[in-house]
Amino acid sequence: MSLLTVGTVAFDNIETPWGKKERVVGGAATYISLAASYFTEDIRLVSIIGDDFPDDFLEGMRKRGIDMAGLQIKQGEKSFFWAGRYHNDLNTRDTLDTQLNVLANFNPTLPDKYRQADFVMLGNLTPIVQMQVIEQMERRPKLIALDTMNFWMDTAMDGLRAVLRQVDMLIINDEEARQLSGQHSLIKAAGIIHEMGPRSIVVKKGEHGAFLFEGDNVFFAPALPLAEVFDPTGAGDTFAGGFMGYLTKTGDTSFENLKRAVIFGSAMASFCVEKFGTERLLNLSPQDISDRVQKFVALVHFEV
Amino acid sequence: MSLLTVGTVAFDNIETPWGKKERVVGGAATYISLAASYFTEDIRLVSIIGDDFPDDFLEGMRKRGIDMAGLQIKQGEKSFFWAGRYHNDLNTRDTLDTQLNVLANFNPTLPDKYRQADFVMLGNLTPIVQMQVIEQMERRPKLIALDTMNFWMDTAMDGLRAVLRQVDMLIINDEEARQLSGQHSLIKAAGIIHEMGPRSIVVKKGEHGAFLFEGDNVFFAPALPLAEVFDPTGAGDTFAGGFMGYLTKTGDTSFENLKRAVIFGSAMASFCVEKFGTERLLNLSPQDISDRVQKFVALVHFEV
Repeated sequence: MSLLTVGTVAFDNIETPWGKKERVVGGAATYISLAASYFTEDIRLVSIIGDDFPDDFLEGMRKRGIDMAGLQIKQGEKSFFWAGRYHNDLNTRDTLDTQLNVLANFNPTLPDKYRQADFVMLGNLTPIVQMQVIEQMERRPKLIALDTMNFWMDTAMDGLRAVLRQVDMLIINDEEARQLSGQHSLIKAAGIIHEMGPRSIVVKKGEHGAFLFEGDNVFFAPALPLAEVFDPTGAGDTFAGGFMGYLTKTGDTSFENLKRAVIFGSAMASFCVEKFGTERLLNLSPQDISDRVQKFVALVHFEV
Repeated sequence: MSLLTVGTVAFDNIETPWGKKERVVGGAATYISLAASYFTEDIRLVSIIGDDFPDDFLEGMRKRGIDMAGLQIKQGEKSFFWAGRYHNDLNTRDTLDTQLNVLANFNPTLPDKYRQADFVMLGNLTPIVQMQVIEQMERRPKLIALDTMNFWMDTAMDGLRAVLRQVDMLIINDEEARQLSGQHSLIKAAGIIHEMGPRSIVVKKGEHGAFLFEGDNVFFAPALPLAEVFDPTGAGDTFAGGFMGYLTKTGDTSFENLKRAVIFGSAMASFCVEKFGTERLLNLSPQDISDRVQKFVALVHFEV
């Protein structure tokens, strides 16, 4: 099975209570692809960068087996840039700067071999671009998942509604789910979002874990409690990457398997936050991941 | 096995986004005893009220099998009173009024038959009163659990340190655990609190569930996601009551059984918030509780 992902590949300036780092390679598509690469070998990335990206990073992505034929490189232009500062609790952050750069005129064109992907992860981008990707698929994928954010609800709600009707799954955080649905209760929010299109909804709550809703089925996985959270940047995208990577590996979209995918996504996110940027996602072993998943089993298992 | 609990029996004025109710019977010992009464028949309550308490409520407590011999009734005085207003998210609240009344001069005296209780739950009260209860026990209980709050950390830290050295388990919320330990990470907080005395620590996170820490063992139970949370008042005490009631019923303080106790406590708390005050805790059936526990199983169960 194959996974297509569209999203940003970007530079981030990150400030946390533990330190500050400039021009860290990040972006939704980067985290998604890297996390998914531990589960499937067939990952096709769609994104856009300027000519300012380090060759060794692109090489690192290729080494992890990620197909970069869909990555547009704009000569003489700059990559998307984001700067943020985390608060002391690491659960909230302020955006200090956003420079769209190449993203301002992004028209994704899918290479031919991308158009039959089995799974599609639409990372957080303008709904128009997300729709353009769906429209270029030659056949209906087994599952299309979408991430979005409050900004698009405020500025592009019509486009967002249109693309929501086309996707099987929405992966967003709790505040986004509340804004999108107008409901505080996440159970009610999931019901209303379901009416908008997606069959399944994952609601990420950061350090408080994640819910999976599908019809009357509800599943919850905690985030792994960690002694040190170093940098939360990319944790949500890493979750999505692990989640979609696991689905792509197994090809199984049953609720029981979606639950497992949530656990693998949570495990990958728990690695992501241990170091700055994508660093921790570059050299994991299958044993690392399997040990981490067993920690989740121990964390929630009980018998009554 | 028997459970002794000390705590407030009080009147609460409660404002939530859904309504306002005055002089609702509440208090930590009320919620703890009622929740525990679904698990064990031998519950001994230690508290103090004025002569303003409705007879039918006291009768209702007796009907649930709660021994009230340790309840002092002060003629010509008023019961403890608290008034609070919940914010829209129901996760935070403002205290509008606190009137200590009878609580200002509370010297608990344990009836003789109370002094050999197997389990002791010290509800949130001044650490001096909590210590007075421990000192009146004739033999070491199987397990003493303690609840406290930020107010005592600010105003009576020496007394709190002294009583912490005497207890087996601390049951507090996340912000209290952070203040007590000076650590943001709950894993680190649990380690530091363990050094202060308690072998086990439950950290309640309200709608985000609860952690149980004991040595290197960590367990997590989510709160049940509910479409409607009507009134969160007493949910934490109801958790503690269900938790201690289950331990008293089983007499088993192993980590595996503490995990089950967390689930039963969470189930009881999920009932509490469905109606104002203690209303939902007065008429539950064993089937209600067993069905609710099965919802927790379904919510977190997965197989990898």
